[in-house]
Amino acid sequence: MYRTNNCGELKISDVGKTVTLAGWVQKIRNKGFLIWIDLRDRYGITQLIINSEKSSKKVIDSVKDIGREFVIQVEGEVIKREAINKNIPTGEIEILVTEINILNSSKVPPFTIENETDGGEELRMKYRYLDLRRPALKDNIIFRNELTFQVRKYLKEEGFIDIETPYLIKSTPEGARDFVVPSRINPGEFYALPQSPQTFKQLLMVSGFDKYVQIVKCFRDEDLRADRQPEFTQIDCEMSFVNQEDILNTFEGLVKNLFKVCIGASLEKFDRISYADAMELYGSDKPDTRFGMKFLNLSEKAKGSGFKIFDSSESIYAFTIENGESFSRKDIDYYTDWVKRPQIGALGLIWIKHNQDGSVKSSVDKFFNEKQLKSMTGSKAGDLTFIISGDKKKTLTQLGSLRIHVGEKLGLRDKNKFNALWVTDFPMFEWDEEAKRYHAMHHPFTSPVKNTIGEDPGSTLANAYDLVINGNEIGGGSIRIHDQKLQEEVFSILGFSKKEAFDQFGFLLEAFTYGAPPHGGIAFGLDRLAAVMKGEESIRDYIAFPKNNSGRDVMIDSPSIIDKDQLDDLNIKIK
Amino acid sequence: MYRTNNCGELKISDVGKTVTLAGWVQKIRNKGFLIWIDLRDRYGITQLIINSEKSSKKVIDSVKDIGREFVIQVEGEVIKREAINKNIPTGEIEILVTEINILNSSKVPPFTIENETDGGEELRMKYRYLDLRRPALKDNIIFRNELTFQVRKYLKEEGFIDIETPYLIKSTPEGARDFVVPSRINPGEFYALPQSPQTFKQLLMVSGFDKYVQIVKCFRDEDLRADRQPEFTQIDCEMSFVNQEDILNTFEGLVKNLFKVCIGASLEKFDRISYADAMELYGSDKPDTRFGMKFLNLSEKAKGSGFKIFDSSESIYAFTIENGESFSRKDIDYYTDWVKRPQIGALGLIWIKHNQDGSVKSSVDKFFNEKQLKSMTGSKAGDLTFIISGDKKKTLTQLGSLRIHVGEKLGLRDKNKFNALWVTDFPMFEWDEEAKRYHAMHHPFTSPVKNTIGEDPGSTLANAYDLVINGNEIGGGSIRIHDQKLQEEVFSILGFSKKEAFDQFGFLLEAFTYGAPPHGGIAFGLDRLAAVMKGEESIRDYIAFPKNNSGRDVMIDSPSIIDKDQLDDLNIKIK
Repeated sequence: MYRTNNCGELKISDVGKTVTLAGWVQKIRNKGFLIWIDLRDRYGITQLIINSEKSSKKVIDSVKDIGREFVIQVEGEVIKREAINKNIPTGEIEILVTEINILNSSKVPPFTIENETDGGEELRMKYRYLDLRRPALKDNIIFRNELTFQVRKYLKEEGFIDIETPYLIKSTPEGARDFVVPSRINPGEFYALPQSPQTFKQLLMVSGFDKYVQIVKCFRDEDLRADRQPEFTQIDCEMSFVNQEDILNTFEGLVKNLFKVCIGASLEKFDRISYADAMELYGSDKPDTRFGMKFLNLSEKAKGSGFKIFDSSESIYAFTIENGESFSRKDIDYYTDWVKRPQIGALGLIWIKHNQDGSVKSSVDKFFNEKQLKSMTGSKAGDLTFIISGDKKKTLTQLGSLRIHVGEKLGLRDKNKFNALWVTDFPMFEWDEEAKRYHAMHHPFTSPVKNTIGEDPGSTLANAYDLVINGNEIGGGSIRIHDQKLQEEVFSILGFSKKEAFDQFGFLLEAFTYGAPPHGGIAFGLDRLAAVMKGEESIRDYIAFPKNNSGRDVMIDSPSIIDKDQLDDLNIKIK
Repeated sequence: MYRTNNCGELKISDVGKTVTLAGWVQKIRNKGFLIWIDLRDRYGITQLIINSEKSSKKVIDSVKDIGREFVIQVEGEVIKREAINKNIPTGEIEILVTEINILNSSKVPPFTIENETDGGEELRMKYRYLDLRRPALKDNIIFRNELTFQVRKYLKEEGFIDIETPYLIKSTPEGARDFVVPSRINPGEFYALPQSPQTFKQLLMVSGFDKYVQIVKCFRDEDLRADRQPEFTQIDCEMSFVNQEDILNTFEGLVKNLFKVCIGASLEKFDRISYADAMELYGSDKPDTRFGMKFLNLSEKAKGSGFKIFDSSESIYAFTIENGESFSRKDIDYYTDWVKRPQIGALGLIWIKHNQDGSVKSSVDKFFNEKQLKSMTGSKAGDLTFIISGDKKKTLTQLGSLRIHVGEKLGLRDKNKFNALWVTDFPMFEWDEEAKRYHAMHHPFTSPVKNTIGEDPGSTLANAYDLVINGNEIGGGSIRIHDQKLQEEVFSILGFSKKEAFDQFGFLLEAFTYGAPPHGGIAFGLDRLAAVMKGEESIRDYIAFPKNNSGRDVMIDSPSIIDKDQLDDLNIKIK
């Protein structure tokens, strides 16, 4: 037993007790005759005091060797503090040290172990084990632990069974790139790491497990973007004998419970919006609905004035900022430049300002009179309207990005406000102009809304749904196909020959002929959910050991070169 | 909503209710005017009745199309059964069907969906999703789910934090073979899949997380033996500021709780035995202590009689079977042949039978008189003693295998009895005569008992411990090294140059210089624990989708060949 208590629990009622504590030295203040040490562990900080009158010479001498981040064990008496610190739970007491024992020394850490640290990103990634000592990061990891436990608890109470599916599975060319694993015992053959346990959870439904959950790592060998990880964690769920309504209700219940139990937030009934409306009103399939600024479709109204840009555009969309009158010319120029950056790619930004005095000012007032401008936007005094025109899909996306950016700048994306929303009725297929083929928008196992694909696959809607919170896609799922014929038809539309479909997914197609129940499910991004609940955007701060943007773990220096013997054993060669 | 109730919950108090059920057709009995269907789902079986007088023609007609394992939905009224079935919870009622809806058809399954099935192992592996419908297998998976939940709940209450560690890590040559994953973004470099999260959990202790748990997949590319899986699941735990006693107490608490809560078994205080004693008394480092038959060391006593085999042997060991007098000559010949099989490799088996009448019969009575035989074994009337001699290590192991086999045959390995035991004080190192080097018996991060390695590494004891239940190794762990110098010394004894040690484990060695606390941990084999708790030996029946003995998933047909494009992208070639 290295300790009788942890560093977060001693209180005024413990005064007089003899205790042993162990932990890290956060800070030392040496006043000669009095020395204070802040001793830290996972549970808190306790102040130690060494008093030249009351402590032994041995104790005083050993303190001289101690520096920041040393690991020490101390014995002493709990005493009442002179100067109470109301900011910490142990702030009324301190420990008068009688014994001190250095358990391990520490070099001076490469950055300060404090929330506001002096360490840069790269350095902190290399010394991740030290970065994780910072309270902010430590609390994130503990929060994630609480979140996963509550997920498991709630779903267990709802009758879900936690079942592990394999990690060494089979590579399939559909979807993102697989990570593969050469098999030594089966030379020339490879396993793949799962992008998700999709087919296995469907097989579990065929087996009759009825309600499945697994918190599971998934792997995608994608070109990494900021805040993407090659391995990430899903809360993966599937249910039998359900329709979309059952799934949305079940998981709305889960998410509301998580917000309530983990962060004390009460979410309102989740709104629902179709994919088409989400694009039309917010220019995004994951709209942030914490604020308004819904789009107006001006494609009809704004044409025919002789303004060529509008007249030649497929679409013209706008949104209005209440009290946007206060935007200066410089502000408007800023947003104009912002949308013209290559990442957004708009050709320009039209604005209409409806002043308090009723007058209207606009970048297109050569082509429209005040009355026309007012009637076009339906704005009221004080409003500012931004307009983008062009190709419909691009226009909507560009204006959607601008809406989020304006919302951000205006402080409308309140970290303490949560708006959850189901987006439904996604298209089944997306046409890939380059490859001249359809892709599955969700995945090839998604059922069409009407259980049948119409004449035009491109206009068929999928029985798929996403959960969006504050503009982040938190989860997505679908009702699955459980009929072999329909599944074959979908593979055929996706360009699989019958042979290819059976080579890759024969086990699933065959399973559908042995009494597959109607079923559907959903998967949540756990890393993202944790971050969003804490009002943050970066998932990396919610993963204990993340990889950097090149997929490297810079702490352990991986990936790395392996021995030639190992390659020989695996029957492979570097090209 | 496909159903109002499941197939396991309707009772006599529900009579009169109109309900909708959905599930699989287990059995149909058609008496012409009366048709019964057993409808099955995860929760149970409910009997449906179709009555030619009371059911519509439509219902009666649709029943004609229905076969075993069809998925159907029925509406009907709960009625009291004529003939009560006391074996099932729903046995007092049945459903008088008014509507029937075929949700999916089923081909005749390749084997019967019953505990006593007619399907062979290979066939059931290929159709694992059907095999999982059998109640025995289904119940195993549900049991495993309950077990994992209780592990998480107990350890959470004990203050453990569930933290995910990465799956894409770094290959190291120590220990078993790694599975590796080529990196596309870093050509020529590889990740490895973890054999365990060992170094990461130690780094979490350096970070100050204090108590860590993770239920985690681990991977070993070994030549597969029966009942080994290339991927398996560990309950992985680590604690800071603990000594061996703390760990043993904490996890004895866990295991006792699991047995209590999951199977209602009260385990007694776990015995403890040193590795040396376990070998000396049971010829095994994982002795089955449900029965006695402890070894006698006759190496002194049995020499000098002129019996060359004994006189020339390093060691002579024996165990005595109470009431073994009843063993016939044929029985004894059977055991003699059994130990002489190459898998055991003994040269022979000596026996001494102490008859009820006081007389003694033995295979070595030419060399020993009755008095000598009695005094050698200390046996009493009715006992039979088996003796093996030779090289000490081999003799102990051979006699240990025989002891288990005799115990099995005599029914002493009672499935409903559980004996748990800590085995401690393992050697730090094992000498590998072939490679002329030491191997770590546990792993290179294990601390020596006295925190220092003596003159002779081969005789240094490790601060390591295994948990053995009923002769199965359920878990193992150690107090770890937290001092850089000691860790370097161990690497050096294992034959690592300083450069090699730092190339591979530099991150850990460096972490030890920044305030690493004393720490230790343990990992349990979850698959094995589940099987042992249910009194079974095969872990495969506790894994939803296991691989066969060649590491293949025969259901999805993996591993498999991948596209040349994929190999090109990964910068590798098949040799």
